[in-house]
Amino acid sequence: MRTQLMEMLEERKEEMIQIRRYLHKNPELSFKEEKTAQYIADFYQGKDVEVQTNVGNGYGIIVTVIGDKPGKTIGLRADFDALPIVEQTYVPFKSKNEGTMHACGHDGHTAYLLVLADCLIQLKSELAGTIKIIHQHAEETPPGGAKSIVESGVLDDLDAIFGIHLFPTNPAGDVGYRSGYAMAGRTYFKLDIQGVGGHGSSPHMANDAIVAASHFVTAAQTIISRRLDPFEMGVVTIGSFDGKGSFNVIKDNVELEGDVRYMTEETQQLIGKEIHHIVKGIETEFDVVCELTYTKDYPPLYNDPKITAEVKASLESMNDLNKVVEYPMVSGSEDFSYYAAKIPGCFFYIGCKPKGVEKAYFNHHPKFDIDEDALLIAAKSVGQVVCSYFEQ
Amino acid sequence: MRTQLMEMLEERKEEMIQIRRYLHKNPELSFKEEKTAQYIADFYQGKDVEVQTNVGNGYGIIVTVIGDKPGKTIGLRADFDALPIVEQTYVPFKSKNEGTMHACGHDGHTAYLLVLADCLIQLKSELAGTIKIIHQHAEETPPGGAKSIVESGVLDDLDAIFGIHLFPTNPAGDVGYRSGYAMAGRTYFKLDIQGVGGHGSSPHMANDAIVAASHFVTAAQTIISRRLDPFEMGVVTIGSFDGKGSFNVIKDNVELEGDVRYMTEETQQLIGKEIHHIVKGIETEFDVVCELTYTKDYPPLYNDPKITAEVKASLESMNDLNKVVEYPMVSGSEDFSYYAAKIPGCFFYIGCKPKGVEKAYFNHHPKFDIDEDALLIAAKSVGQVVCSYFEQ
Amino acid sequence: MRTQLMEMLEERKEEMIQIRRYLHKNPELSFKEEKTAQYIADFYQGKDVEVQTNVGNGYGIIVTVIGDKPGKTIGLRADFDALPIVEQTYVPFKSKNEGTMHACGHDGHTAYLLVLADCLIQLKSELAGTIKIIHQHAEETPPGGAKSIVESGVLDDLDAIFGIHLFPTNPAGDVGYRSGYAMAGRTYFKLDIQGVGGHGSSPHMANDAIVAASHFVTAAQTIISRRLDPFEMGVVTIGSFDGKGSFNVIKDNVELEGDVRYMTEETQQLIGKEIHHIVKGIETEFDVVCELTYTKDYPPLYNDPKITAEVKASLESMNDLNKVVEYPMVSGSEDFSYYAAKIPGCFFYIGCKPKGVEKAYFNHHPKFDIDEDALLIAAKSVGQVVCSYFEQ
Amino acid sequence: MRTQLMEMLEERKEEMIQIRRYLHKNPELSFKEEKTAQYIADFYQGKDVEVQTNVGNGYGIIVTVIGDKPGKTIGLRADFDALPIVEQTYVPFKSKNEGTMHACGHDGHTAYLLVLADCLIQLKSELAGTIKIIHQHAEETPPGGAKSIVESGVLDDLDAIFGIHLFPTNPAGDVGYRSGYAMAGRTYFKLDIQGVGGHGSSPHMANDAIVAASHFVTAAQTIISRRLDPFEMGVVTIGSFDGKGSFNVIKDNVELEGDVRYMTEETQQLIGKEIHHIVKGIETEFDVVCELTYTKDYPPLYNDPKITAEVKASLESMNDLNKVVEYPMVSGSEDFSYYAAKIPGCFFYIGCKPKGVEKAYFNHHPKFDIDEDALLIAAKSVGQVVCSYFEQ
Repeated sequence: MRTQLMEMLEERKEEMIQIRRYLHKNPELSFKEEKTAQYIADFYQGKDVEVQTNVGNGYGIIVTVIGDKPGKTIGLRADFDALPIVEQTYVPFKSKNEGTMHACGHDGHTAYLLVLADCLIQLKSELAGTIKIIHQHAEETPPGGAKSIVESGVLDDLDAIFGIHLFPTNPAGDVGYRSGYAMAGRTYFKLDIQGVGGHGSSPHMANDAIVAASHFVTAAQTIISRRLDPFEMGVVTIGSFDGKGSFNVIKDNVELEGDVRYMTEETQQLIGKEIHHIVKGIETEFDVVCELTYTKDYPPLYNDPKITAEVKASLESMNDLNKVVEYPMVSGSEDFSYYAAKIPGCFFYIGCKPKGVEKAYFNHHPKFDIDEDALLIAAKSVGQVVCSYFEQ
Repeated sequence: MRTQLMEMLEERKEEMIQIRRYLHKNPELSFKEEKTAQYIADFYQGKDVEVQTNVGNGYGIIVTVIGDKPGKTIGLRADFDALPIVEQTYVPFKSKNEGTMHACGHDGHTAYLLVLADCLIQLKSELAGTIKIIHQHAEETPPGGAKSIVESGVLDDLDAIFGIHLFPTNPAGDVGYRSGYAMAGRTYFKLDIQGVGGHGSSPHMANDAIVAASHFVTAAQTIISRRLDPFEMGVVTIGSFDGKGSFNVIKDNVELEGDVRYMTEETQQLIGKEIHHIVKGIETEFDVVCELTYTKDYPPLYNDPKITAEVKASLESMNDLNKVVEYPMVSGSEDFSYYAAKIPGCFFYIGCKPKGVEKAYFNHHPKFDIDEDALLIAAKSVGQVVCSYFEQ
Repeated sequence: MRTQLMEMLEERKEEMIQIRRYLHKNPELSFKEEKTAQYIADFYQGKDVEVQTNVGNGYGIIVTVIGDKPGKTIGLRADFDALPIVEQTYVPFKSKNEGTMHACGHDGHTAYLLVLADCLIQLKSELAGTIKIIHQHAEETPPGGAKSIVESGVLDDLDAIFGIHLFPTNPAGDVGYRSGYAMAGRTYFKLDIQGVGGHGSSPHMANDAIVAASHFVTAAQTIISRRLDPFEMGVVTIGSFDGKGSFNVIKDNVELEGDVRYMTEETQQLIGKEIHHIVKGIETEFDVVCELTYTKDYPPLYNDPKITAEVKASLESMNDLNKVVEYPMVSGSEDFSYYAAKIPGCFFYIGCKPKGVEKAYFNHHPKFDIDEDALLIAAKSVGQVVCSYFEQ
Repeated sequence: MRTQLMEMLEERKEEMIQIRRYLHKNPELSFKEEKTAQYIADFYQGKDVEVQTNVGNGYGIIVTVIGDKPGKTIGLRADFDALPIVEQTYVPFKSKNEGTMHACGHDGHTAYLLVLADCLIQLKSELAGTIKIIHQHAEETPPGGAKSIVESGVLDDLDAIFGIHLFPTNPAGDVGYRSGYAMAGRTYFKLDIQGVGGHGSSPHMANDAIVAASHFVTAAQTIISRRLDPFEMGVVTIGSFDGKGSFNVIKDNVELEGDVRYMTEETQQLIGKEIHHIVKGIETEFDVVCELTYTKDYPPLYNDPKITAEVKASLESMNDLNKVVEYPMVSGSEDFSYYAAKIPGCFFYIGCKPKGVEKAYFNHHPKFDIDEDALLIAAKSVGQVVCSYFEQ
């Protein structure tokens, strides 16, 4: 099956590129991917598979490929939403939806997986097990699509799950992996600080919310500098300090918004506890009223060590790849983590740095672009992993 | 002349009230008082005086009343601009210009002075000296009208200057004075802090402007707490902290705006010097680029002790007043200070608390109102001071 | 009586100087003034007065001079303790107790009052009332002597009380007064912050008391900068930050000590409340255990306006004085305030700047010195005030 | 040679224990290990080796064992200084020098190496190369002994170097290793902040060093929280804040001392640069004079990956060990790093947790103790590594 599959993929390289370009030109924002979902569903039209649409809290699609022989059940996941970014590239298939852009490579993820899925469907008779193709909506925007798909129960029978991400850190041909915690978890928080407004010349008649909020910002630095194990990764960013007012009026209210990153659940709990402490302390210290919203988004992504070792071994045995490298931990977040928290899985990285470029624009940049050779690499790599898994 | 003047004023009390009501109904914002200025100029039409219009940087009007006998030259000043406030009173002469309101009593100031000026014109034959009636535009909005009128040179020949303010801290019949520094000076500042934006999870690739700005706010507190003589009045208010952004993006830029108050020029210089120090320090500490705009608005108002003692004595000899009281220093600012910085002067306070009210709405409140009896009190008090001055 | 008294004092000028020099050479610290008290008691030996010793919580002495005629009862107070300062002058009567010095002029206070008291005793037949001479111990060191003397009840019958202080701000011949609040109150505080010690490389295993204490210092600045009326005097000084430890060990404990100054009881309460708030806040914020000791020392000194007006008038009618000037408020503290809180009183200032000196060393300086002419001025001024008081 | 060596060591287990106990009872502080050095030198008396004493900046001893056959040159290092700790154990060989204790296991390091060295000397005829036994003084106290020994040039001919540390994290029989950066580097800093002293009530006449220093502490937290890559290890501890003074006197001077930890030279440079920035900023902000001493102590310990892989393989082939485990990075520091910075080396860990103990007291604890079986394990492990190295 492996040889056949690889040959089939090789032949359909151009098709992957065309699909990716179509999707790139027609991007849709998270939770609004109506046409993209339709495009995907249409692709499976007439094929010998079960297609579930509107899975989870949006346009999620699950395509179940049941092999003719009995065996385990695995999932392959690709996300298909785009970002609210004004594209600044000069590609002929540039986004026609101004202000929306496939700047994270999800177009490529979906393109390779459609073709790979089709090939696997054609090879059903060889397949000893079941494959669920997960076309996931809304990866970019919390709460994301993954959580709801997991909660829907549709993946309860999975023995393993795999996914990839295109990253321009490496050229096409390089594949990266990391065992254990690999991508950061994220928590969103909002802190509303209510003081008392007043005339700029009479601070004692008012209660300055800007001063209280500034002390919060200052004190919050100690969470990372003093409370966290220096060998642990953690970030507390206050990205927004909304205290705009009049120069001569004491501000009554400030709203802060921020972002917490971590590689382990222990760190997330520690940081959460400390932020709550500091908020309570600021309330007492400055006699302000604080309202804290603290919402865990995506958990850290944990790649199952056994599965990851198998993926690594399987990839290393391929001829198509240039390098299989261990990746450092990544501070970005990814809702594949919801699958991996429940199902042993491995999420790995496909190099896609455009040829001839010294330093590529990174994901989410308005000039982000990929080497489309990476699509075939992705398809073959995942295909290889699937074959190895079922061969065990 | 004094007796005659008082009788004349007494007879025209109702007229003052009507003028005040007309102005109240037709308020205009600072630097936009075109119709108000026309109304004032019209009032002097056909009277035996010189009227200069468009004095200074706006609609200022100077009316020169030259007595038949030689003597000193004094100025009497009233301001005539209104505020950007939505009136919330139920008076029948409520502002017809929604969003603009005479909420500081300038309507009353102008009303009493018009009538007083007319009486003084009629008494020219008795007058041993010259009186310049200063109808000033734009007191509420820096740079104000006073500075430019002073700079125009039109008041260069003044020996003394007088002005009043209606304050509802006391009932009509009470008059307040304060010798020396009486109302605070004010400085506006803006601080632009430029860091480097970046992804919320990668603080080391960015340079967080919110953290730098918060340290500025924190450090700036020490100016008042540690650098200023504890017996001196000083305030540093940061009224605006404009750092709104996305929760998961490190903010590249913050703009602070603030307000400094002081009773002496020494304090203003001290605070200015310290703010510059802290800004320079923050730049070095956090490797950000700061741009500081630091603009003195109105200087502290200084009432000449000799003139003020004469005003006090003169007022105390009147029968019409209930009380002549020493006022505490006021943290608000007033551009009469520009006149008083150049010409020995006295700016004093006329009680106008509405009858039957326990605690009045203060100036600038959308429900601010006055006891119109205060208009006659104002006219008589200033008339009395004028007579005393020329009698010396 | 006035003329006689003044002549008697004039004749005994040299005696005052000799007494002052003796005391200067033999200084004793607060609460340890055994020999000084004995010297004072000996002075009254054989004189026709009642002498109470060991009054209050130390070596206080009350000498009661009962006039032959009935009348009011007043107190005259002088303090007699010295300071723990190594004298650096070259006077021939330099302290022989190395490390102890009359650097605040209490030697002069006691010298003039002994001689004045003796004169008044001799004039008892003329005296229409009673005078209690209060030789007070321990002014320099809280809780001071005054509080305990007041609480002993021995002054319960006083109608008025007077005291003076030698200040080298003005030359001998100048006398200063201030009505109402004149000298600052003071509160002592100590804050013990208990964290958890640990290895310098493992902050997460410890809880850094130095970081928590530094945030306290930073936050405490906002009391003066944002909570206090800008027209009110207030100071919060953290004079001691005891956090000495090893560079590579996280400090478990820090002890701060500080000093609060204020001119009104309202301010003292406000500052006390805010310090407590901040301490509570720091506890929650940093999970440390704080113990706050907050002890009011001397209250602000309040000179009774009526008595002070009389003192001023009385002094202005003397020929011996060069100038009688209104003094600004003084940020130093003085336990005469305990008397003045209970008995209408006036504490005034006697200039003592050494002749030929441009700028004198101030009280508490190791080179502090006085113009001894000030002793006679002090005696005559207080004598004058006494005569005026009884003549009313 | 391997078999012979292992048998010889086995037989001399008791001797190692006795030597360790002798050293434990007779501890000496860093740079004062005169008698310990003499004891070591005496041990080699009459043996067929060259012994160099007083090597480096103290009592370092280098013993050169030249094999009869040509080959490479390696170093084996053990340290022999003790700590200023009052021993709190009940062992019969408890320190007889009250206040000094072998609480870090250096007694054991020296004991095993003396016996191992003696065995290797006896096996010289078999040895194809040269072994330098490095008995190092003063590991505990910067600048340490290692740096000076390296700089002396006496190790310039080494091809590899090995050392071990006893750690009670694991039982005797476990051995730990870590490739690459393994133990943290350390920098000492001292910051003297000079303000201007003054009376507690007059902050404007002084310049409060405690406030400036507290702002330094607060700002320094941002180095770790905002400047450092969240995936990098770094610590900035201010272990000492020496600002003890009088509660009512504004402190003129504060001295801070601290400790910086890092795993890479890049991090050490980053932190150093940022501390300098903040110090410069504080100077400008608060107009204080700062003097910063910033002294790199021990660099991070870097185990050569190739050598470490060989050590790991060699140890895994032994029968005597229970487990060979990868250790996490350690935040503590060790001056073996100076050798490893110049010579490819491996420093590994010998478990020594006392039998029957759930959680052992860690190194530097006054109750630190070891399972003496670990001495033979250490000797055999290092012996094994030596044999493997020369066999290559």
